[in-house]
Amino acid sequence: MNADLSAQFAAFLDNDEVVAATPDLLIDQRRRFTAAPDVVLKPKTVDSVQRIMRYCFERKISVTPQGGNTGLCGAAVAQGGVLLNLSRLNRLREINLADNSITVEAGMVLQQVQEEAAKAGRLFPLSLASEGSCQIGGNIACNAGGLNVLRYGTTRDLVLGLEVVLPDGELVSHLQPLHKNTTGYDVRHLFIGSEGTLGVITAATLKLFAQPKSTATAWVGLPDIDSAVGLLSLVQGHFAERLESFELVSRFALELSAGYSSLPKPVDAEWHILMELTDSLPNDSLPDYLAEFLYQHGFENSVLAQSEQERRDLWQLRENISASQRSLGTSIKHDIAVPIAEVAGFVRECEPALQAAFPEIRVVCFGHLGDGSLHYNTFLPDVMSNEVYEYEDRINTIVYEHILSHKGTIAAEHGIGTIKKHWIPRVRTAAEIALMRAVKAQLDPHNIMNPGKLLPDA
Amino acid sequence: MNADLSAQFAAFLDNDEVVAATPDLLIDQRRRFTAAPDVVLKPKTVDSVQRIMRYCFERKISVTPQGGNTGLCGAAVAQGGVLLNLSRLNRLREINLADNSITVEAGMVLQQVQEEAAKAGRLFPLSLASEGSCQIGGNIACNAGGLNVLRYGTTRDLVLGLEVVLPDGELVSHLQPLHKNTTGYDVRHLFIGSEGTLGVITAATLKLFAQPKSTATAWVGLPDIDSAVGLLSLVQGHFAERLESFELVSRFALELSAGYSSLPKPVDAEWHILMELTDSLPNDSLPDYLAEFLYQHGFENSVLAQSEQERRDLWQLRENISASQRSLGTSIKHDIAVPIAEVAGFVRECEPALQAAFPEIRVVCFGHLGDGSLHYNTFLPDVMSNEVYEYEDRINTIVYEHILSHKGTIAAEHGIGTIKKHWIPRVRTAAEIALMRAVKAQLDPHNIMNPGKLLPDA
Repeated sequence: MNADLSAQFAAFLDNDEVVAATPDLLIDQRRRFTAAPDVVLKPKTVDSVQRIMRYCFERKISVTPQGGNTGLCGAAVAQGGVLLNLSRLNRLREINLADNSITVEAGMVLQQVQEEAAKAGRLFPLSLASEGSCQIGGNIACNAGGLNVLRYGTTRDLVLGLEVVLPDGELVSHLQPLHKNTTGYDVRHLFIGSEGTLGVITAATLKLFAQPKSTATAWVGLPDIDSAVGLLSLVQGHFAERLESFELVSRFALELSAGYSSLPKPVDAEWHILMELTDSLPNDSLPDYLAEFLYQHGFENSVLAQSEQERRDLWQLRENISASQRSLGTSIKHDIAVPIAEVAGFVRECEPALQAAFPEIRVVCFGHLGDGSLHYNTFLPDVMSNEVYEYEDRINTIVYEHILSHKGTIAAEHGIGTIKKHWIPRVRTAAEIALMRAVKAQLDPHNIMNPGKLLPDA
Repeated sequence: MNADLSAQFAAFLDNDEVVAATPDLLIDQRRRFTAAPDVVLKPKTVDSVQRIMRYCFERKISVTPQGGNTGLCGAAVAQGGVLLNLSRLNRLREINLADNSITVEAGMVLQQVQEEAAKAGRLFPLSLASEGSCQIGGNIACNAGGLNVLRYGTTRDLVLGLEVVLPDGELVSHLQPLHKNTTGYDVRHLFIGSEGTLGVITAATLKLFAQPKSTATAWVGLPDIDSAVGLLSLVQGHFAERLESFELVSRFALELSAGYSSLPKPVDAEWHILMELTDSLPNDSLPDYLAEFLYQHGFENSVLAQSEQERRDLWQLRENISASQRSLGTSIKHDIAVPIAEVAGFVRECEPALQAAFPEIRVVCFGHLGDGSLHYNTFLPDVMSNEVYEYEDRINTIVYEHILSHKGTIAAEHGIGTIKKHWIPRVRTAAEIALMRAVKAQLDPHNIMNPGKLLPDA
C-alpha cells in the first residue's frame, strides 16, 4: 500500500471510499493469488468511478476492477495500482415489468439480483455455486455460465444494456430494455467477457423471465456417459425447453460429496445425472410425467424428488462436490466444453492419458452435460499443496490437447485471467488477436485497465 | 460493368463465377436504389471468396456482399467495385442433433434453413416477411429480427459460431455448437450486425429448438394501445415463454390488408392484436385454455383460430400489410423500437406531430408489440412517388425525435445501411464511434469492405 497515493485519492473522494487492504480483498477465493495493490478504493457512485478513472488515466495508474473476488483464473488480482472494489455500487436502479427487465449496479451480489427479481414475481435465472458472494458486474465481465445455460443462456444472453466507465473516465450508458436495437457494431458484447480490461462495468439492464410454477427433479444412475447423452437427447426431444438442468456427476464425485454432505447416495452407478424440469404454468403432474417417461425408456435406476426437502438434498449432492473435493488437496481445475456428442470420447481418452503421465492422479469430473461443459478437476495426492501448481502446465497440456482434438474450448465459463492467457494463440487466429489488441489500444491506450489479464503477452 | 476487370477475375475463378449484372441483382427490393458495380461475382466456394478478397485487398477494389437483396436500408447496394453475390454458397454443412445446431453456408435462403431444420425434427425460429428470398448470411449481417424475437431472440441470439473471410482474404472459422465459450473478446458479435463492412460471412452454426406440438392463435380487438400493453402483461405473466408472437395492427393497417387479402376483418376495433401461443408438448386444449383466459379477463372482442386454415387466414391479414400498403404509394419506413411501456405514448404523440407538418400524411402502424418494435410507415398521398424521398429527412426527424424522447431506437431490425448512418452520432457516443472506426481500420485498412455503409461519414 502506498500512503501517498491513498492521500491523493482521499483528496477528491469521500473519506470512506479509500479503504484498508483487508485479506478478503487481497486473497482470492481459492487462496492461490495474493493481490498487491498500491491503494484500495470502494467508490459509492458512478461519479466517483469516473473521477477515479480520469485521475488514473492522466497519471497512467493501473486499475483492477474487483467484484466478489470469487474468480477462478486470477482476473481480479491487482498487482500494483488501484484495486477498484465495486461492492458499494450495489443499488437496484429499476424493475420494468412491461419489458421484463431489471437494472442493477455492478456491485449487487448475484443472489440479491435473484431476490429482487423474485420480489417482483419474476425469475433472474443466472445461478452458480458462488451466487451468495459473486457480484453481477463480475458475472458480466467473465460471461459467467452456471446451472441453467441450457434453458436461459450465459450471462451474455441475459444482458440487454450496459453502463460502462471507459479508461479515460467517459461514461457510456445504454441501460435500455430493448430486445431489438441494431445501430452499428455491437460494443456491448466486447465488454461482456472482457474481464475488466476495457473499462469498468457500473450497471446493467438484465432480462427477467417468468417464475417456474412447477418443478420435477430426478436423479438417474447410468453405466456410462454415452447412456447419459442418449437420455439427454430423449429428454430434449420430449420436454424441450422445460429441461432446465442436466448435470453429470461421476461415481467418485458423488462418493466425495455424499460423504461431505452426510447424505445417502440416491442410486448406485458409474455415472449420475441430476435433471430438473420446470414449467411456468402450474402442473402438479410434472413429476409423475417425468417418472413415467424414465420408466418407459428403461431408466429404472432413478429417484424422483418427492418433496422440496428431497429436491434440496439432491441439489446438495451436486453443489457440494466443489467443497468436498478439497479433502483431496489443491486441484488443477479445468473449465472446459466440447460438443455434446464428444463428451464421452473426451472423458474416455483423457483420464488414461493423464494416468500415463501421473499414475497417482485422481480426476473429479462433473458438470453441465446439457450444454457440454465439464468441471474436470485433477488432484495429485502425493504432492504437497504448495507444489501442485508446478505440475499445472503439464497437466493442462494433456487436458487441453484432448479438448482441442474433440473440437472443444479450454475456457467455458471461468474466463482466462492470468492462468490461461498463454493458450489464447492456440484457440484464436493471429488476425483475431490483432483485432483484440486494436480494441484494447483504442479504449485503453495507456494499458491501465487490468493490465496483464486476458490478452496473451505480446 | 468493367469488361477488363471481369476478365481479371475470370482468369482465376471458374467461368460461371463471373456473371452478368441482371436487374434482380442491381435493383433493390423496394426499387429505391440501383447498384452500379464494376463486376458481379457469384463464388461457389469459400476458397473462391478468399481468392476474390485477396485479389481485391491487394488492388484496393471495393467489395459489397449481397444476399437475397431484400435489405431495406441500402446496405447491399454496390457503387463500383465487386458486387459479391453469395447465393451459390448455399450448402447445408451439418445438422447436429445432440447439440441442437445446424451449420449452413451464408447463401442459403432463410426458408430453406427452416425446412432443413424441420426435416431433422427441429425448429429454426427466425421468421420474417422476406423469408422466401432473404439469405441467412444477410440475416446475420443485419441482425434480423422478425415475428418471434419475444421467445427466441434476434438473429444475434441464434448464432453459435461464424465462418468469416476477412478483407485480406484470411479465413476465421469458429463453426462450433458450444453454448459456453469465453476465450477473449467476442469477435463474433462484431460481425453480426456489421452489414458486410468487416468481412464476408460465409457460414454459420445456428441454434435449433424443439418444434411446437401445439398452437393457439387469437385475434383480439382493443380500444387503445394501453389495453394491448395490459393484455401483453397478463399473457406474459400467465403463459410466459409459451407466448411466441404478439403482433399489433392498427385499424387502418387492417383495413388495407383485409381489402388486399379479400378476407373479412376478424373483429371491429381501433387496435388489434394477433397472438400465438405454442407448446413443445402436445396439448389439444391450449386453444380452449387461451379462449377461457381471454373471456375471464374481459377480452371478449376476440376470435380464436378453430382450424389451421383459420390460423393461416389470421396470419395472412398480418403478413399482407406490407404488400397492401403499396396502394398508398411509396412509403417512408421507420423500423423503430421503444420500451413497451412507452409504445402508447409514442404513437399518441407522433402522429399529431406529423400531421402538423404534413396535414395529408397517412400512417400505417403495425409490428411486434411483444418486443416493443414497430413498423411505422408514412405516406404522402399528394406527392409523386419519385419525389417522396425529398421529404424523408423532415419526416424522419419528427419520428426519430419522438423515438429518442421515449428512450427508443431508430433501428430495431432493418439495420443502418446508407439511409440512417447520419443518425448514428445521435445514438452512439463519440468514444463508441471511434471504437467502431478502430475496429474497421484494423480489419479493413483500405476500406474496401462495403464502403459508405453503416458508419457515419467522417
